[in-house]
Amino acid sequence: MKYGYFDDEAREYVITRPDTPYPWINYLGCENFYGLFSNTSGGYCFYRDARMLRLTRYRYNNAPSDTGGRYFYLRDAGEVWTPSWMPMKSELDRYECRHGMGYSRISSARKGLAFSQTSFVPLGGNCEIHKISLTNESKADKDIDIFSFIEFCLWNANDDMTNFQRNFSIGEVEIEGGGSRIYHKTEYRERRNHYAVWAVNAPVAGFDTDRQAFLGLYNGFDHPDAVFAGKAGNSVASGWAPIGSHHIKLHLIPNEIKTLVFTLGYCENPEDQKWGTAEDGLLSSANLVSGKNLPVINKAPAKALLEKFGSPEAADRALAALNDYWNKLLSRFTVEAEDKRMARMAGVWNQYQCMVTFNMSRSASYFESGIGRGMGFRDSNQDLLGFVHLVPESARARILDIAATQLPDGSAYHQYQPLTKRGNNEIGSGFNDDPLWLICGASAYIKETGDFSILEEKVPFDNNDALADTLFNHLKRSFDYTLSHLGPHGLPLIGRADWNDCLNLNCFSKTPGESFQTTANYESGVAESVLIAAIFAFVGPDYVEICRRTGRAEEADKADKAIALMIETVKKHGWDGEWFLRAYDAHGKKIGSHECEDGQIFIESNGFAVMAGIGLDDGRAEKALNSVKEKLDTKYGIVLQQPPYKEYHLELGEISSYPPGYKENAGIFCHNNPWVTIAETRLGHGSRAFETYTKICPAYREDDSGLRRMEPYVYAQMIAGKDAPKFGEAKNSWLTGTAAWTFVSISQYILGLRPVYDGLLIDPCVPKDMKGFSVRRHFRGAYYNITVDNKAGVEKGVKSVTLDGKPIKGALLPALGDGKTHEVNVIMG
Amino acid sequence: MKYGYFDDEAREYVITRPDTPYPWINYLGCENFYGLFSNTSGGYCFYRDARMLRLTRYRYNNAPSDTGGRYFYLRDAGEVWTPSWMPMKSELDRYECRHGMGYSRISSARKGLAFSQTSFVPLGGNCEIHKISLTNESKADKDIDIFSFIEFCLWNANDDMTNFQRNFSIGEVEIEGGGSRIYHKTEYRERRNHYAVWAVNAPVAGFDTDRQAFLGLYNGFDHPDAVFAGKAGNSVASGWAPIGSHHIKLHLIPNEIKTLVFTLGYCENPEDQKWGTAEDGLLSSANLVSGKNLPVINKAPAKALLEKFGSPEAADRALAALNDYWNKLLSRFTVEAEDKRMARMAGVWNQYQCMVTFNMSRSASYFESGIGRGMGFRDSNQDLLGFVHLVPESARARILDIAATQLPDGSAYHQYQPLTKRGNNEIGSGFNDDPLWLICGASAYIKETGDFSILEEKVPFDNNDALADTLFNHLKRSFDYTLSHLGPHGLPLIGRADWNDCLNLNCFSKTPGESFQTTANYESGVAESVLIAAIFAFVGPDYVEICRRTGRAEEADKADKAIALMIETVKKHGWDGEWFLRAYDAHGKKIGSHECEDGQIFIESNGFAVMAGIGLDDGRAEKALNSVKEKLDTKYGIVLQQPPYKEYHLELGEISSYPPGYKENAGIFCHNNPWVTIAETRLGHGSRAFETYTKICPAYREDDSGLRRMEPYVYAQMIAGKDAPKFGEAKNSWLTGTAAWTFVSISQYILGLRPVYDGLLIDPCVPKDMKGFSVRRHFRGAYYNITVDNKAGVEKGVKSVTLDGKPIKGALLPALGDGKTHEVNVIMG
Repeated sequence: MKYGYFDDEAREYVITRPDTPYPWINYLGCENFYGLFSNTSGGYCFYRDARMLRLTRYRYNNAPSDTGGRYFYLRDAGEVWTPSWMPMKSELDRYECRHGMGYSRISSARKGLAFSQTSFVPLGGNCEIHKISLTNESKADKDIDIFSFIEFCLWNANDDMTNFQRNFSIGEVEIEGGGSRIYHKTEYRERRNHYAVWAVNAPVAGFDTDRQAFLGLYNGFDHPDAVFAGKAGNSVASGWAPIGSHHIKLHLIPNEIKTLVFTLGYCENPEDQKWGTAEDGLLSSANLVSGKNLPVINKAPAKALLEKFGSPEAADRALAALNDYWNKLLSRFTVEAEDKRMARMAGVWNQYQCMVTFNMSRSASYFESGIGRGMGFRDSNQDLLGFVHLVPESARARILDIAATQLPDGSAYHQYQPLTKRGNNEIGSGFNDDPLWLICGASAYIKETGDFSILEEKVPFDNNDALADTLFNHLKRSFDYTLSHLGPHGLPLIGRADWNDCLNLNCFSKTPGESFQTTANYESGVAESVLIAAIFAFVGPDYVEICRRTGRAEEADKADKAIALMIETVKKHGWDGEWFLRAYDAHGKKIGSHECEDGQIFIESNGFAVMAGIGLDDGRAEKALNSVKEKLDTKYGIVLQQPPYKEYHLELGEISSYPPGYKENAGIFCHNNPWVTIAETRLGHGSRAFETYTKICPAYREDDSGLRRMEPYVYAQMIAGKDAPKFGEAKNSWLTGTAAWTFVSISQYILGLRPVYDGLLIDPCVPKDMKGFSVRRHFRGAYYNITVDNKAGVEKGVKSVTLDGKPIKGALLPALGDGKTHEVNVIMG
Repeated sequence: MKYGYFDDEAREYVITRPDTPYPWINYLGCENFYGLFSNTSGGYCFYRDARMLRLTRYRYNNAPSDTGGRYFYLRDAGEVWTPSWMPMKSELDRYECRHGMGYSRISSARKGLAFSQTSFVPLGGNCEIHKISLTNESKADKDIDIFSFIEFCLWNANDDMTNFQRNFSIGEVEIEGGGSRIYHKTEYRERRNHYAVWAVNAPVAGFDTDRQAFLGLYNGFDHPDAVFAGKAGNSVASGWAPIGSHHIKLHLIPNEIKTLVFTLGYCENPEDQKWGTAEDGLLSSANLVSGKNLPVINKAPAKALLEKFGSPEAADRALAALNDYWNKLLSRFTVEAEDKRMARMAGVWNQYQCMVTFNMSRSASYFESGIGRGMGFRDSNQDLLGFVHLVPESARARILDIAATQLPDGSAYHQYQPLTKRGNNEIGSGFNDDPLWLICGASAYIKETGDFSILEEKVPFDNNDALADTLFNHLKRSFDYTLSHLGPHGLPLIGRADWNDCLNLNCFSKTPGESFQTTANYESGVAESVLIAAIFAFVGPDYVEICRRTGRAEEADKADKAIALMIETVKKHGWDGEWFLRAYDAHGKKIGSHECEDGQIFIESNGFAVMAGIGLDDGRAEKALNSVKEKLDTKYGIVLQQPPYKEYHLELGEISSYPPGYKENAGIFCHNNPWVTIAETRLGHGSRAFETYTKICPAYREDDSGLRRMEPYVYAQMIAGKDAPKFGEAKNSWLTGTAAWTFVSISQYILGLRPVYDGLLIDPCVPKDMKGFSVRRHFRGAYYNITVDNKAGVEKGVKSVTLDGKPIKGALLPALGDGKTHEVNVIMG
C-alpha cells in the first residue's frame, strides 16, 4: 500500500493521506536550530542539543502516536478542525504533505477553506518559520478563527519529564503586543540567558499561555476548550505547563488569500544584557501580582529575529535561500538513470539522510529521544563517508574533533559530547574497532579532497592540548592499537565489543538493566574478533598509502607486512570451511561456526572480509558470499546471523537479549547490508550487488509501506528478520550508519565513482540489464558529467573513457580543479 | 467549591464528581506491591521500586491529565462508555469514588447499567485486585461487552521513556486460557526472572496485547478501535507497546449482578525454575513464527497468586483482611471532637498519609515521578515521627537502616537507595543538619516505646560492617559533628544546605541545570545556619536525657553545657532585634535580617528556635512569633520568608531560583508551619497554635477545592504564597514531611499527648473555645481512653487527671503495658 509518491522534480516526497503507518517525518534546520516535523505537523524543535535546549515538549510513545507539534486550529462557521489532520483527525476534503529538502509543506482544505503551512528553519536564524495561508474557495464571505498552539519544554528535556515537584512551580512567560508575541522565559530569572519566542505577524484577538486554560484539564490536544469556545482565555502561565497560543480572527471574501507568519525562535542575551524594559501592556507571570515590578527580559534579539524573518516577504526570501543552499549542495552528486528509484535515492534522499546524520548523529529522531547525548567515535567516522563529498570542510573539522577524543594509547572514547566535544567517561573506551574507523574516516576525507595537510594538524589526545600530536600520529596509534591487542590466534582482541555493540564477549551480565557494554566483570584476554581483523585489512592499505605518500616508506612496509599477516591469520583461524567465522568468545569457543547451535553464520565478518579482499584469490570470498546468500538472505534484506539465539547467552551478551528476528539477533540490520553489496562488486557480481542494494532501499518498498511502516524516502536501522512475527517491518528510521554505507555502496561501488588518492576512479559494477546511467559529480573543485554506457550488458569492466571528448588511458579521472564542468563518457564492456 | 465529602464512619473520602481540579489519588498497598490510584482509575503500579520494577506505564504531565490506568470499557447496546469517567469522559447517570484505607471503589451507572470497581492490593500478595460488578438496573435483558485495558511498562520506568531504539523491539507476551491470562514477559528471556500477569476469572471472547491493534495508531485511550468495533483483535504483541486487554461478553437479566475479578500481579521465579511447559493453546510473541518452539515462562507463581486472590470470594476475604489491618493500625490513635475536621485529620487521614510516606518516602506520587531513587536521611528521620506510634518495629528497623548510612565522622549520606540501603555517592554528604535528625528520630522511637535496647544495636558506618558501632555512638558522633563544625560566630556551619535544601550558601552556580546542592565550587568555611543551631538546641536535650538514662553522666553534662552555649550563641549572633536570623552567607553577611533587601525574615529559624525554647525566658520567643505572624502569616498559611527574592542570588542558590511565592521562595512550605504551631504551644498560645494548624490543614479547605486543587484529605508540600499569581493553590500532595510534623503538632502539642521517657505526658494547648476532646491512644502495650475537659475555657494547663477513676499526681500517664484499656479523665484549668 502506498501513502504518497516522489516528486523528483521538486525533490519532495508527497504524502497523500495523513494516516501513514507511522508518523513520517522530515528534519528542518542545518545549522544550529533543528526541528523534527511529521506529516501531521507533529514533532519538536531544539537549539543545538536535543536534551539540554529543547524548545517544545514532545511525548514519545504516546497514545495517540505523535502528540505534540505546531498545531493550528481553524474555526469556520462554528466548526473546529485541524488542517494538519492531527490532533483532531479532522475529515479533510484535500490533504497533502510535501517533505522537501529542509522544509515541509502541508496543504489541505475543508468546506471551501484551503490551508497551507510551509515550515522550515531559515539559514542564519535560530527559529522555525511556519508560513500559513488561508484561501476562501467558497462563494461566500468567511469569518475564520485561527488558534496556534505549541507547548514549551522547560529546556532540559530529561528533567522536563521527571522533576515535576520543581517544574510545576517554575514556568514563566511574558506577553507583548497584546498577545502577538509570547515569550517563554522559565529559569531566565536565574541561570539561563536564553528564552523562546512564539510570534505572529498580525494583531491577535487573544492568546493563551497556560495549557490548562487553553485545553481544559482533562482534554487532549483534540479538544481545546478555548478553540471550541471560540475565544482565547488570555491566560498568563505561572508554573504548570506554559504554552503559546495566538487567536486571530480573519475575514476572507471569496477567493481571498490571507497569509500569516508564525515564528518560533531561540534567543540568547549576553550575561550583562539580560534585562530590558517593559513595553506598554506587557504581561508577565510574576507581574500579575499587584505591586510587583519585576525585571523583564531583553527582547532585542527576538525583535531582530522577527524583523529578519517574520513577514511573508522575508519568509519567502529565507525559503528561497534555503532552496539555493540545498540545490547547490546536492548538485555535487546527482544521478540520472532509467531506474528512478535508484536515481532519486542515490541522487537526493540518501545524501539528504547523510546530512541529517551529520547534524543529528544519533540524538533525535522518532526513535532516539534526544536524551542520550553521545556522538559515537565509530558512528561519526562512518557517517562521514556519506557527507564528505558534500561538506568536506565540515568533515575535516569533524575528523579533528573525533581524533581529539582518542586516548594516548590509541584507543578511543566510545562516545563524545557534541557540545563540549569531550570524551564520555561513563562509557569509556575499550571498543577495539574504534581506532580503525578513524583511519577509515581520515582516508576517505583525503581521497575526496586530496588534502594531505590534515595529517599534519596537531590534535590533542584525550582533549588534552599538552598531549597533542599530528593527526598522522593519531592514525599510527590507531593502526598500532590493533597490533598491540591481539589474542591467542593472532586475531584482534574484541574488548567490550566491536562494530556490533551487542556482541559482548567480556561482559557476563546477569543483572537486569545493567549495561551490556560497560559492565566490566570478565576480562578474558582471549575473546577475538574476525570482524576487526577484516576492518584492519580493509583500512590498512589506506594507512599504507598515506605513509607512502607522506615519505614514510619504512612505516608503510611494516604496515604492509602486518596486513598480510593479518590476512593469513584470518584465513587460518578465521575461516570455518564455507564462510568466515565471526569471533572467538571468552572461553576460546568459536562464534559464527557450523559447530554452533545458534549463530552459525554472521553477515559482518563475511561482508567485511570480502570488502577487504580476503579470499578473492583462493575462492574463500566467493564461498563466503554464497553462504551469506544461501543462509542469511531474505526478500527484505540480509539478516545479521542465523539461526537466531533462542536463549540468553551469558557469554555473548546483548545480541542474545533480543527476541529472534529483531535487531542484532537475526534482524536485518541494514548498516551491514551494503558491506555485502560492496563485497559482491569485488567479485564483479553486479546483479547480486544491486539486488542486495535494492532490498533494503526504501524507495523500492514504497508500495509495501503498510508492512514496512517507515518513511519510503529514508533508510531504517533495522528491518525485522524472517524469524520475527513482523518480518519486513522496519524500525529506527533516519539516524543510522546505513545511510552512509548505502551511499558508499551505490555511488562508489555500483555506479563505481570512487575517489582515490590520484583522482576519481570509474569502476561500475551493475546488473547486466542496466543499460547505463549518468552522474554529475563534484570532485576537488571541478564538476564531472559522467555518462556510463552499458549497452554491452556486462556487470563490470570499463572499455573506454573520454574526458571532454578525448580518450584517456585507464579509468581514472584526474582532479582538474578548474571550477568547470567536464564531460566524461564511459563505455562498459 | 466541593467535589466530595468525608464519610467518617467508613474512613473514606467520597468524591462525587469525576472532574476534580486535579486527579485525586489514593495509595494501594502497604507491603511490597504498590499502586497509585486516581478517582478515575488512573495511575500505575510497581513492585517495591517505582523506577526499577514498574508494571504499568503512566505518562506524567500529559494532555489530557492522568492518562494511563486500569480501564474498563463497557459496550451496551452499541454505545461505548468508561464507567470511571476517564478516559472517555463518558456522561454518567451516577458517579462516586470512595478512597478508603488502602482501597478505592468507583461506582457509576449509565442507562440502566450499574458498575462498581473495588481496587486494592491484598496483604500477602504482590498484585492489584480489581473486583468489578455489573448490575442490570433496567427492565430488559442486556448484552454487555466489557474490555479491560492496561498498558505494560517495560520494567525500568526511566529506560521505558527514553530508549525506544531498543524498547520497540523487545516487548513479549504469552497468552493462556484463550486470553483470560495475559503474561508480560519482556526481557524475561534474558536477565529478568520476573513477569507480570493480568488475568480475569472468566472466559473471554477475545483479547489484545498490542496497543496499536487495540487502540489504533492515531487514537487515544478515549477511542479504542477494538471496543468500538465490539471485537478484540486477538493481537499477540511483538515489540512496540505490549498491553493487556480482555474482552468478555455478559448477559444480564433485569436486576442481575455479575462479578468479575481482574488481577494484575508481579511474579518471580528462582533462576533454576524460570522455564515451564506450554499449556494447550498458549500463544507467545516469538512462537508466532512457525517452526519455533521457544521456552515458555514458568507460571506456577502466577497460578498460586490467582488461586489465592482471583475469585470474588477470595477477593472479598482479602479486602476484609486489609480492612482489619487498617482498623487495627489506626485504633492506636483515634480522636473524637466537636471539630470533625480536626478529628478526622488527626485521627485518620494524617496518620494514613504518614504511613504512605513510610512506604513511599519521596518516590512516587502525582508529582514525584518514581524516577529519582533516594530516601532522604533527613526526610526519613522526620517521616518516622508520624508513624512510630503505629509501626514501632518498622520504625526501629528504619532507624538502623538510616544510621548504617552515616559516615564515620558523624556526617551522613544525604540519601540512600531503598533497595540496597546504601548511601548515594552521587549526592554524597555535607548537609550539616542531617546528623541531628538521627537523634531526633531515635529519641522519638525511645520515647514512644521505652526501648532503650536500640541504643546498643551494632550499626555499620557507611554500610561497612567492619566500622560497626553501637547506635548510641552513632548519636554521639551526630551530636559531636555539629560541635566540630562551627563557624566564626560559633554557629553551626551549614555545609551544602540545612533543612532548607534550597539555601545553598556554598554553591555559586551559574550553569543551567547544574545541581545547586552538589556542585561544590565555593567552600567558604564561613556560612552558618541559625536553624541548625536551633535544631541542636531542640534535639540536644534528648541526647542529654539518653546519656543520663544510660549511665553516661559525664557525656550528659558536657552536652548540656554545649547546648547552653549554643543557645547563648543564638541569642548573641542569631538574633536580629525582632526575630531570629536565618543564617550567615559565604561572605559573612546576614540572611533573614531587616538589613537585607529581600529575605528579611524566615520561618524556619524562628519556629525551630522557639520550639527549642530559645528566648522563652527573655521575650525573644514571643517577639519572634509575633514577627512571624505579622510578616509571614497569610490566610492560607505561613510563607517561608519575606520579601521574596526578586532576582537570582548567586550566593543564596536555589531559593532565589523560584518565582516569588512558589516553593522555598516565599511559598507556604507547609513542612515548617507546624514548627510554628508547636512554638506557639510553648508560649501557651492555644488559639494561635490551632489557627496555624488549621490554615494548612486540607480538611479545612474542602469547600475551597477549586482553588486549592489538591486532595482535601492529604497535606501538600507547598501552597502558593501571597506573592504568587495563584496564591492558595497547593502542589505536591502526599509525599511531604508536612504529614509527620503536622501529626506531631496536633497530637503531641495541641491535643498535647506527648510521649516522654517516663510515660505519656498530658499537656494540651488548645483554643479557649475548644470545650474538650477524646483520644484513644495506644502507648507501650496498653490503650488509654483519654477525655479532656476544657469547660474552663483555658488555652493551657491541666488541673487534674484521673486514671481509671483515680486521681494521679501531675499529668504523666505511666506505661502500664498490660494490654488493657485505661480510662483517663483530664480537666484543664
